[in-house]
Amino acid sequence: MNKIRIKNCHILTMEEDRKQIQEGEITIEKDKITYIGNVRDNIDERDYTRVIDAKGHACLPGFINTHTHAAMTLFRGFADDLPLMTWLENKIWPLEDNLTGEDVYWGTLLSILEMIKSGTSTFNDMYFFMDDMAEAVRESGIRAVLSRGLIGLEGKGEKGLKETDEFISKWHNSCEGRLKAMLGPHAPYTCPPDFLKEVIKKVDHYKLPVHIHLAETSFEIEHCREAYNRTPMEIMEDLGFFKHPVIAAHCVHLSQNDIEIMANRGVKVSHNPGSNLKLASGIAPVPDLIEAGIEVSLGTDGAASNNNLDLLEEARLAALIHKAQKDDPTVIPAYKALEMATRHGAEGLFLGGETGVLKEGYKGDVILINLDKPHFYPQHDLVAHIVYSAQSSDVETVIINGEIVMENREVKSLDEEKVMFNAEKKAFDLIKRKEA
Amino acid sequence: MNKIRIKNCHILTMEEDRKQIQEGEITIEKDKITYIGNVRDNIDERDYTRVIDAKGHACLPGFINTHTHAAMTLFRGFADDLPLMTWLENKIWPLEDNLTGEDVYWGTLLSILEMIKSGTSTFNDMYFFMDDMAEAVRESGIRAVLSRGLIGLEGKGEKGLKETDEFISKWHNSCEGRLKAMLGPHAPYTCPPDFLKEVIKKVDHYKLPVHIHLAETSFEIEHCREAYNRTPMEIMEDLGFFKHPVIAAHCVHLSQNDIEIMANRGVKVSHNPGSNLKLASGIAPVPDLIEAGIEVSLGTDGAASNNNLDLLEEARLAALIHKAQKDDPTVIPAYKALEMATRHGAEGLFLGGETGVLKEGYKGDVILINLDKPHFYPQHDLVAHIVYSAQSSDVETVIINGEIVMENREVKSLDEEKVMFNAEKKAFDLIKRKEA
Repeated sequence: MNKIRIKNCHILTMEEDRKQIQEGEITIEKDKITYIGNVRDNIDERDYTRVIDAKGHACLPGFINTHTHAAMTLFRGFADDLPLMTWLENKIWPLEDNLTGEDVYWGTLLSILEMIKSGTSTFNDMYFFMDDMAEAVRESGIRAVLSRGLIGLEGKGEKGLKETDEFISKWHNSCEGRLKAMLGPHAPYTCPPDFLKEVIKKVDHYKLPVHIHLAETSFEIEHCREAYNRTPMEIMEDLGFFKHPVIAAHCVHLSQNDIEIMANRGVKVSHNPGSNLKLASGIAPVPDLIEAGIEVSLGTDGAASNNNLDLLEEARLAALIHKAQKDDPTVIPAYKALEMATRHGAEGLFLGGETGVLKEGYKGDVILINLDKPHFYPQHDLVAHIVYSAQSSDVETVIINGEIVMENREVKSLDEEKVMFNAEKKAFDLIKRKEA
Repeated sequence: MNKIRIKNCHILTMEEDRKQIQEGEITIEKDKITYIGNVRDNIDERDYTRVIDAKGHACLPGFINTHTHAAMTLFRGFADDLPLMTWLENKIWPLEDNLTGEDVYWGTLLSILEMIKSGTSTFNDMYFFMDDMAEAVRESGIRAVLSRGLIGLEGKGEKGLKETDEFISKWHNSCEGRLKAMLGPHAPYTCPPDFLKEVIKKVDHYKLPVHIHLAETSFEIEHCREAYNRTPMEIMEDLGFFKHPVIAAHCVHLSQNDIEIMANRGVKVSHNPGSNLKLASGIAPVPDLIEAGIEVSLGTDGAASNNNLDLLEEARLAALIHKAQKDDPTVIPAYKALEMATRHGAEGLFLGGETGVLKEGYKGDVILINLDKPHFYPQHDLVAHIVYSAQSSDVETVIINGEIVMENREVKSLDEEKVMFNAEKKAFDLIKRKEA
């Protein structure tokens, strides 16, 4: 059985009381944290399978990416700086129509590799070829919440629901508990109300949370107004979705009434600043959401529109852009941004009792950041440094579910060269197939 | 004499014709590039002092940071997320009043260390204790343009002008040509017109460019309107400054008339998106400036308001924030952002014939980026990858003025541990002195 001791590090527990331990110790046994506090004397280190002297490191819960489409790394850099519909219709959708399960497997592994290397221990993904996505999660050791993306147009609905059933029965709560399922209706503009009613039946049946895109673009708002005379939030509320746990990605274009519905219903928000900026979708009213008591976490979205899976960058963007937007340098201070990347992320994925903070009884999802870098000096304020100065390459060690998956920046659970090589080959082959 | 051959790398020349060389070679002799093109056969490598096989690397001109206050790294993380005037009056200015030359020396070295490690080969700095700043430039091997920051209030004007004279006579064109001087009037709100007239006399005398903060905050606009019934740009135009070469930092709050003045006069702009966001100064109208034919480059500003000196991050912010601001995902495409970080930077500092592109006869200011990282796969588009996916820690080698100052991420010209240790000690001592 794993028994890991990490000692002499500066621990940011990310608990609500903002507790920090200057020279701390964490013990992980099997998949759980069994001790966190000051460094204990009289410990017989021979009882441990590993002892890590983490002097000069910050110790945090792993980052939680609450919205992505991992396999879309295959399209990273394939099409940038284009108008949204040109990008989707001419570039992304034709490639997606040609994807195979093997493509999704390698694309997902490439994403997971990048996420681990940037300190992410949990991600929330909506895509398709579920067995391939799940297999990548199983092998890599990462924690994930997956949903089969459901589209209710062009007769695609039934297949998606069927594959959802198969996926849940086969994979929910698998991989030593690391893999959980959600229901994944794509968005109100791709899921007409009749189809959403079918989805709600599944939600009732499985009692699982819902992962959906909501209010991402002004196009979506106009579409919903024209088709249903409702905002996307109002559509979901009217259909009864918000009686269930829901995490909504983006939430850029919201009315005051939308925000009230979300606050009343406890809807969780995945804020994706990088993707929203790059696609010119807009800037989500995050300070207003937080003010209304809504839980806001962070997502990278897929690498086709970001173009990386670096959650620390999203935390920094969140801490920066709302200050200018609100004309107020005090909004989303550094600590709040770091909470969005950790504790709020866990709560956004309904894993609040399990991960996202460092606490006894919680899962052993822990990262170590090497502070011996010029951009961390002078060490006036560790939290400000991590949010405003750090690079995700400063993350040196990643432990997930009690297993060391990266150490000294080397990923243990995956063959890095093989993943990069195969994902690139699959991407190039896919483009060739499409062009043929 | 140095004779360096770099071969087998993907060269982005950053010339106006966007020339790239897939498997290229660069030769640097003494301080200059003497060959750039395809890899040559029949080269006797025994003639070279160094041969670098850079397969799997991108080769670019070093980044150019056109506005910073390097020594302010001492205040990194000391005060964040505060209203601007609270931050300045209660936190930053009291510390600056207590600075010594030795503090500035170590703070500047810490900045230079961080800049070299993130691929910056040239920076433009306005601060004080010029001998100490210049000494740090001399030792580190970086290229720099320095100006003595001039304040025309509280009887500070004369001292600043005198130190400007001393600095220029002692240091302009020194350090094998790496160090150049500019004139540094701080801003219209700290330099009343009578004092600015004194500055203009110096500019006429020395025929050196001017580095100034202009139109950074709405406070400044109001101040200038109330005091002089002019915008900051109009004040400078009326005083005749724009008959001289000027680089203006920030330029956030501009009227249409301001933009016309700047375009007519060839005023160069240093865009500082990170600092402008963090201080809630606003978002500069960069797409409009570019549309008007104005040269826009990138600066980090000081580390007290950024909080790093990572020019690649500024390039990414520039490529992201204006898309959302303009509701148009095609503005500031990746290549333009990279030009802002390189060629436009050199032109902004009036070093256009010397650095900022890779070309025979130009200075040997060259960086190598290691592409063997998950976030660079699949390699669909190198420019998009560097702007949207890269971390500055991917920069592996930095050559400045023909000297290898960093290799395999180890800085050769400085003792990294000593710089970090001493800068931190100076910063902590400074705070103790102020509190005493």
